[in-house]
Amino acid sequence: MSGKLSRRGGAVDPFIVMDVMAAAAEKEAAGDTVIHLEVGQPSTPAPKGALAAAHAALDSDRIGYVAALGIPALRERIARHYREAYRTEVSPERVIVTTGSSGGFPLAFLASFDAGDRVALAAPGYPAYRNILTALNLEAVDLPTSAADLFQPTVEALKKAGRIDGLIVASPSNPTGTMVGHAEMKALAGWCADNGVRLISDEIYHGIVYEGDTASAVEVSDEAIVVNSFSKYFSMTGWRVGWLVVPQELVRPIERLTQNFFISVPTLSQHAALAAFDCRGELDGHVRRYRRNRDLLLAGLPEAGFDRFAPAEGAFYLYCDVAHLTNDSRDFCKRMLAETGVATTPGVDFDRARGAGTLRISFAGSAAEMEEAVRRLKAWRRP
Amino acid sequence: MSGKLSRRGGAVDPFIVMDVMAAAAEKEAAGDTVIHLEVGQPSTPAPKGALAAAHAALDSDRIGYVAALGIPALRERIARHYREAYRTEVSPERVIVTTGSSGGFPLAFLASFDAGDRVALAAPGYPAYRNILTALNLEAVDLPTSAADLFQPTVEALKKAGRIDGLIVASPSNPTGTMVGHAEMKALAGWCADNGVRLISDEIYHGIVYEGDTASAVEVSDEAIVVNSFSKYFSMTGWRVGWLVVPQELVRPIERLTQNFFISVPTLSQHAALAAFDCRGELDGHVRRYRRNRDLLLAGLPEAGFDRFAPAEGAFYLYCDVAHLTNDSRDFCKRMLAETGVATTPGVDFDRARGAGTLRISFAGSAAEMEEAVRRLKAWRRP
Repeated sequence: MSGKLSRRGGAVDPFIVMDVMAAAAEKEAAGDTVIHLEVGQPSTPAPKGALAAAHAALDSDRIGYVAALGIPALRERIARHYREAYRTEVSPERVIVTTGSSGGFPLAFLASFDAGDRVALAAPGYPAYRNILTALNLEAVDLPTSAADLFQPTVEALKKAGRIDGLIVASPSNPTGTMVGHAEMKALAGWCADNGVRLISDEIYHGIVYEGDTASAVEVSDEAIVVNSFSKYFSMTGWRVGWLVVPQELVRPIERLTQNFFISVPTLSQHAALAAFDCRGELDGHVRRYRRNRDLLLAGLPEAGFDRFAPAEGAFYLYCDVAHLTNDSRDFCKRMLAETGVATTPGVDFDRARGAGTLRISFAGSAAEMEEAVRRLKAWRRP
Repeated sequence: MSGKLSRRGGAVDPFIVMDVMAAAAEKEAAGDTVIHLEVGQPSTPAPKGALAAAHAALDSDRIGYVAALGIPALRERIARHYREAYRTEVSPERVIVTTGSSGGFPLAFLASFDAGDRVALAAPGYPAYRNILTALNLEAVDLPTSAADLFQPTVEALKKAGRIDGLIVASPSNPTGTMVGHAEMKALAGWCADNGVRLISDEIYHGIVYEGDTASAVEVSDEAIVVNSFSKYFSMTGWRVGWLVVPQELVRPIERLTQNFFISVPTLSQHAALAAFDCRGELDGHVRRYRRNRDLLLAGLPEAGFDRFAPAEGAFYLYCDVAHLTNDSRDFCKRMLAETGVATTPGVDFDRARGAGTLRISFAGSAAEMEEAVRRLKAWRRP
């Protein structure tokens, strides 16, 4: 008799996009070209200044353990970022450097919730929220959303959710690209404060915004936990570095948790991240490219029969309603990949109930790739 | 009313050594020199070949996300390491690259155990085991150990532990430096297999061995989970990269868990870790230095009244019985630091029941530091 597999180990969902990526890799191995509109990461490396800082640290620093909450200079620089970009004072003490936003979520959840607690979140949404919550013995509570409310949580929806202990908001949202404006963020934070609910605001796509009004939870609440990352705007996915802004009373509990769960965040990545704040020119250039890609897809895809999108206000995704084309998005994406070489992510990864009629298109690549994707999809849908 | 602090967030113990480190930093800021025998990390950077590989990857690689289970070449190289160092065949598929051993423990625990499960471990031991288990709603079950059994778990102790679901073994052990030999590892693995208990073997100090017989769990069991790291022998703490070897049936569940909890392991660190396997000469030189430091302390400390040590067979720690000198190791270490500038870790970090009479001395530093520590402690104890 051997050791068992835990129920929770067996219960965690895979990312279905991984199947797409495996099929795409097979197709490429067979000599076909694949247009990768399935990947959720910038196609660019870290900005030049960050790379130079990493080279310099390799030559001068031991790259040993550092303070569990992060290198002080980086915590201070992040706090300054809130002053500069949001006109909001945040004490550096409340800033906690994490191993990507992935490292931030378990810390936020463990510090805020006990087994059995209920945490509300929008569907469609990033699937890891639910999977991490479930693995930590927490209950994920789906909030119904619709195109009318930009697929974002509302106070009305919260009132109907039953007892909850936490709320996760993501703005700009993965997969929809929609945002929560200042008024809505204030209303959500106010309701959370009134009801003893911990607000967790995922802001990893901040900085990649095309239109509309986006808000940080730090602007409206000292009680919210903000999750952010150097992976998206700062174009540093594989470096695994991000941050939290937490209420003062959670600093010490999260310090103890992170000492035990992480010891410290990759040292070299922290040096590089600090330098990345001085690379706005290069990084804003990426955002201009995303905007051109978005406009190119929004202009071209309707001719291929894809014409129902959530308003792509931020991030680098189009969330596309394809219910008029299929009732099985997983199969639809598989056929699209096989027949055109265009890889996208089926909506079932983000919304198990309704995702059979949606897909996510990433426009983080090059303009040439977007043009080629439109050309292939037009030929596919209107041969 | 604001969001609450979770019970588990409030319950996690701090590392008491952090207090020592803060007091040491204060003392240094005041102009005193401190001999750091409290730190659990090599004083050296990554080996030259690893640094060169990191420079090269910065220049040529996007440093994007990579496969959740790790870069294939690194998984294959680790598998080869088992063939070369242990004469044991391990399929690369069973090797999972992790964000340090810290990243490996939650994956091992979540895949193996459900809320309420009981996991046995030796006291004294690495405090994060207990703290991670507790945060994941698992019960840590202390196994009584003694100098006679080298502070390691035995089948006899397991038989008296009541129902358990898991066993953590650490060899060489932090804080004691003692090891589990082949016969003992085989007996422990056999008992676990017979009783449906998942064996988790922490082998992060393998490669730093001075005498005696140490075994890897992979040599005696396909059902154990082995946890290892590039932090200690490979001298790469701040890079945050390690690995697991897991039973075949846990590969897919852990892949899903790590996709959700980590996305991927720091990319640059994986490139550097791969190169570190070719740096044996430099790394074995560190081990020779540790051995000289250990011998120097074992020869000199008895003259200062410290003469009761666990057999330091591996790792870079002396676990010292000071019950004849104090019944409050925390206060004792504080006074030692204040009066001599020698920083050590009180035993209460590792053994809450009996650690008031012990302390841990790290000899990862330089020979000059060891000599100076002995000199100061002799003057302190025999003025």
